[in-house]
Amino acid sequence: MSHITSMLETHPNDTSGLDVQKLADCIAACFECAQTCTACADACLAEDMVTDLRNCIRLNLDCADICQATGTVLSRRTGQNLTTVKALLEACRTACQECADECEKHADMHEHCKVCADACRRCEQACADLLATIG
Amino acid sequence: MSHITSMLETHPNDTSGLDVQKLADCIAACFECAQTCTACADACLAEDMVTDLRNCIRLNLDCADICQATGTVLSRRTGQNLTTVKALLEACRTACQECADECEKHADMHEHCKVCADACRRCEQACADLLATIG
Amino acid sequence: MSHITSMLETHPNDTSGLDVQKLADCIAACFECAQTCTACADACLAEDMVTDLRNCIRLNLDCADICQATGTVLSRRTGQNLTTVKALLEACRTACQECADECEKHADMHEHCKVCADACRRCEQACADLLATIG
Amino acid sequence: MSHITSMLETHPNDTSGLDVQKLADCIAACFECAQTCTACADACLAEDMVTDLRNCIRLNLDCADICQATGTVLSRRTGQNLTTVKALLEACRTACQECADECEKHADMHEHCKVCADACRRCEQACADLLATIG
Repeated sequence: MSHITSMLETHPNDTSGLDVQKLADCIAACFECAQTCTACADACLAEDMVTDLRNCIRLNLDCADICQATGTVLSRRTGQNLTTVKALLEACRTACQECADECEKHADMHEHCKVCADACRRCEQACADLLATIG
Repeated sequence: MSHITSMLETHPNDTSGLDVQKLADCIAACFECAQTCTACADACLAEDMVTDLRNCIRLNLDCADICQATGTVLSRRTGQNLTTVKALLEACRTACQECADECEKHADMHEHCKVCADACRRCEQACADLLATIG
Repeated sequence: MSHITSMLETHPNDTSGLDVQKLADCIAACFECAQTCTACADACLAEDMVTDLRNCIRLNLDCADICQATGTVLSRRTGQNLTTVKALLEACRTACQECADECEKHADMHEHCKVCADACRRCEQACADLLATIG
Repeated sequence: MSHITSMLETHPNDTSGLDVQKLADCIAACFECAQTCTACADACLAEDMVTDLRNCIRLNLDCADICQATGTVLSRRTGQNLTTVKALLEACRTACQECADECEKHADMHEHCKVCADACRRCEQACADLLATIG
């Protein structure tokens, strides 16, 4: 995630009401979770027992879309829209929690669900940590 | 938006806890708003007075990303994740409201901001209407 | 798609090397195809015979992502990057063609695949028509 | 990028016609470039000389959208659509090249353009390397 930190440090605006380290961590967690959920949906789709994994695939795809949007929005520091950012972080935290809860049910049987649940938990925590600094 | 209704009607699942007409309206409003905000950000960027439109561009880009994710998530009916859907609808409503408030400040001077503010208000209302049916 | 035309007409730049009507048609077709493919992937996932529809789901998801990116890029008129636009239109045309070919195999059995194949064919044609005007 | 490799290794399909290491490198480069281009567009927007950076902002936004779609499509291994993947890799390579060319013009003056040009060049090369293995 060194590129994330580099871009935050070279931005002409140095204030955005957000803790820079927690912001960088959350951006990295969002993009990691988006990629992992996309891959987990696809891996679930290839499993023999795909009919048992429908809900997992749906939650993975939704979580990927929401994390992707959140990571992108957080990457911007121009302008002021903290109300939107807070609501989006709440949605992202919720999506990651629901997806992790589902993936954990299959983690013993499918290693990709275990890796994905871990990525979702990290992103859920990173969103919570960033929200805590906004107040 | 006839394709949206066609896809909802031909889906094998007929229940998802959401009102189908309000769902179709909200999906259409989200995609319309995403496209309009993308175009408004680009039109603002080309204006002579771009330095006065920085905040508008930022809010447009964020609103486009959030509406896009929301329209995509709402297009899925398999599985159960109403908690995530509700949080996302709240974020989308908030983003549309903040973006409309900003675009309306420039609507007298820039016709594209007027068109965009209208699209944001329609999407804000569509999200509120759909949320009201979820309870 | 009246909002697409409105935004093109109110943009401060009146030249971009692209035919405005064919551009508007292609933007509309891309967003319609992105939504339809997202919904078709989800409908296929809910079918009893999901194991026979894995390839269809994969192609739907890819086509949705590529159409979404293409519709978004085409919505911008500031700056000059026709080389990128042409390459992206070629990729979008290819994705729509591959996805339509697959959906048509299931169109007799699944109405959502028929609706989706039609949307893919319209977008494939719209991309080809726009490419023809760029030269 | 350890999560990318973990997800590739735990996927039930072990063949997709793509070199796994080059695939992982390209996925990582695409997501890094998408985030960096998003941040660079926003940083350029905040600069005093934003009127000189309009083309750079446009190319950054387009490159971000295309890299995001490419990284997402490459994250899937179920199904067969190499024709689409190749066309998309060509579009992504082109977008990265055009964006890097533009960012390099401003790299002496704006550090964020230098960081972004480097990310674009890495992604351009990663796409070319992956394309070379497909044939």
